[in-house]
Amino acid sequence: MSRMTLRRVAVIGVGMSKFGKQPEKGLVDLGTEACIAAIKDAAINPKHIEGCYCANSFGEMHCIGQDIASKVGVVNREMVRVENACAGGSTAVRETFLAVATGRYDIGLAIGVDSMTTCVPKGPMASNKDIDGELGLTAPGYAALQMRRHMEKYGSTNKQFALVSVKNHHNGSLNPYAMYQQEMTLEEVLGSRMVCDPLTLYMICPFTDGAAAVIFCSEDKVAQYTSTPVWMVGSALRSGDYSLFWKEIDASPMGEQVAAEAYELAGLGPKDLDLVELHDAFAGCEISNTEDLGLCPRGEGGVLIEEGATALGGRIPVSPSGGLLAQGHPLSASGVRQVCEITWQLRGQAGKRQVDGAKVGLAHMEGGIVSGIQGGACGINIFTR
Amino acid sequence: MSRMTLRRVAVIGVGMSKFGKQPEKGLVDLGTEACIAAIKDAAINPKHIEGCYCANSFGEMHCIGQDIASKVGVVNREMVRVENACAGGSTAVRETFLAVATGRYDIGLAIGVDSMTTCVPKGPMASNKDIDGELGLTAPGYAALQMRRHMEKYGSTNKQFALVSVKNHHNGSLNPYAMYQQEMTLEEVLGSRMVCDPLTLYMICPFTDGAAAVIFCSEDKVAQYTSTPVWMVGSALRSGDYSLFWKEIDASPMGEQVAAEAYELAGLGPKDLDLVELHDAFAGCEISNTEDLGLCPRGEGGVLIEEGATALGGRIPVSPSGGLLAQGHPLSASGVRQVCEITWQLRGQAGKRQVDGAKVGLAHMEGGIVSGIQGGACGINIFTR
Repeated sequence: MSRMTLRRVAVIGVGMSKFGKQPEKGLVDLGTEACIAAIKDAAINPKHIEGCYCANSFGEMHCIGQDIASKVGVVNREMVRVENACAGGSTAVRETFLAVATGRYDIGLAIGVDSMTTCVPKGPMASNKDIDGELGLTAPGYAALQMRRHMEKYGSTNKQFALVSVKNHHNGSLNPYAMYQQEMTLEEVLGSRMVCDPLTLYMICPFTDGAAAVIFCSEDKVAQYTSTPVWMVGSALRSGDYSLFWKEIDASPMGEQVAAEAYELAGLGPKDLDLVELHDAFAGCEISNTEDLGLCPRGEGGVLIEEGATALGGRIPVSPSGGLLAQGHPLSASGVRQVCEITWQLRGQAGKRQVDGAKVGLAHMEGGIVSGIQGGACGINIFTR
Repeated sequence: MSRMTLRRVAVIGVGMSKFGKQPEKGLVDLGTEACIAAIKDAAINPKHIEGCYCANSFGEMHCIGQDIASKVGVVNREMVRVENACAGGSTAVRETFLAVATGRYDIGLAIGVDSMTTCVPKGPMASNKDIDGELGLTAPGYAALQMRRHMEKYGSTNKQFALVSVKNHHNGSLNPYAMYQQEMTLEEVLGSRMVCDPLTLYMICPFTDGAAAVIFCSEDKVAQYTSTPVWMVGSALRSGDYSLFWKEIDASPMGEQVAAEAYELAGLGPKDLDLVELHDAFAGCEISNTEDLGLCPRGEGGVLIEEGATALGGRIPVSPSGGLLAQGHPLSASGVRQVCEITWQLRGQAGKRQVDGAKVGLAHMEGGIVSGIQGGACGINIFTR
């Protein structure tokens, strides 16, 4: 990245579809809903959008981005579908940012969309074509192993894991875009059905249906569209190593490295952040991811949540939207959805869940822990106002 | 593109898997075969590869690029899966080129892979979620409509369409990488089973299994790897309009526009080309695509093939590899496979199918004519030695 000459790039419009089970809607319906919202938010003529990256994980349809974009008047443009497991949305955001930053477009559209209730093949989400899959290692199984190792190594507790879910459901209760807008007590989380010890049902995010869209603009044209731009100042994407058996699994060397690269490009560090949206597909992920991001020293992620530092009003609020746990997780949409939340936060438009005076926000997604591809991809994008 | 500052980028290694029905191999097997060949061709330490774009259309596996790359020692890198229907491979080539050209990496890997015999859902390849699909408009149906319109408007003949297949099967008979390495006579093509009048079976490319890989390098490091670099000098990618009913279908305005953009970046025109690899999924496509590319005036594509201008030894050889018709078409692999062929041709390594003294080659793929997404994507990449 240091060899690149990048222009400054701003977010000028964001939009989301409803998140939640909506099997009556197809990918195009969901994506169109998000794009219309983003176009209205930017008050832009869609004909001025010059290119589009659309993240989508599941679905038989090819050229899905084209199909969505055409419904909102964006045709005859460069369009690419990307996929990177849970980090697919982060990838679409990064690719669109880079296209604008390097001068390929002045205005670009990032879309993330998935319909998990209609497009995902039945059965456990683990491939039977690799050794981990053959051993029965599904995503919850892997997450539980991570949690067990964290407990053994650092003394983390079931209560700390459960508190992640309590916090994120509280945040979700303040967010009209969240799939789950109800509080959940510590007792409810710990007492819910055991899925894979120590992982209980309410420590697992719900797969769901939804889409999100973000419009990026080069600095020279920003004033035409908004007086409250949100600048994308840092970005990194990287995949890791393979095979679970080569290393400690309570931390992600990939996540640490991506964070270091994104911080370097932004010229910022973890102490500069006002809020973080991160990958909490399982409650344990949030604890190790806060450590990967440098929000606390290694091993202290459990203490961080227990002290309330990551709650709204705390030192560094994590997932004020409610995260994947309350917002729901349409795989490729989440990394784009996080940018909507951060934009609203930095504009001061986040309503009851507003982080006071937020100036810097970071979006983190990490995916591909399924079926032997631990280290599939981690994408981090950083924004300022 | 004119706003971008691009470094010169060379192809330093290419490789292909076997193309043909090989259901015993998975996507990872095919991709690994191609990557090993490309790495050997470049004589590069795989650890020096800094990023990877992997095109794949069909397959349940996520992060497929990571899985393939890890098998050849490329880990802990930026990796993205892309999809763009038939133009997916062209997209991976373009994205990797741009990443190197803009300084994101010095060395990048483009992979294209599909296993059409094992991963494609059964049934006609048309969505039932849009109006064209509901009308029964499959890809061959659409191709036949294009041919009919071309016949009516320009007087093209069944014989001219059939000659495309005869030429490409002849070329394939000279290519050890082709799926079909047998000659086919005019009578055999015209007499084969009628699929959708005037389209006969042997005018349709075979879906198949295969992978291809290309390694790109920034100018400053090229000398470390090769004394015979092939330079990528032009590239464009664009999607078109929707709905078949809005326009004439015997030409592709999208294809014409992408060609104009790619020629402009390269500073070259159709008269400068020594060979072309193009999208001949159906014999009629080759005729209209030669017109889109400016190899002859609009409407004269039929005459071009009949005169022998596009044959080996002709004025502008088209698909010396045998094209999709003889080479076979693993959807996302084809756009990368074309770059292998062009590289071999420009190096003078194309054996019996060598275009004498070839200095400039163009790769063209156009996809997404299925199920209402006419104008899905067209990708063109241009190379020189």
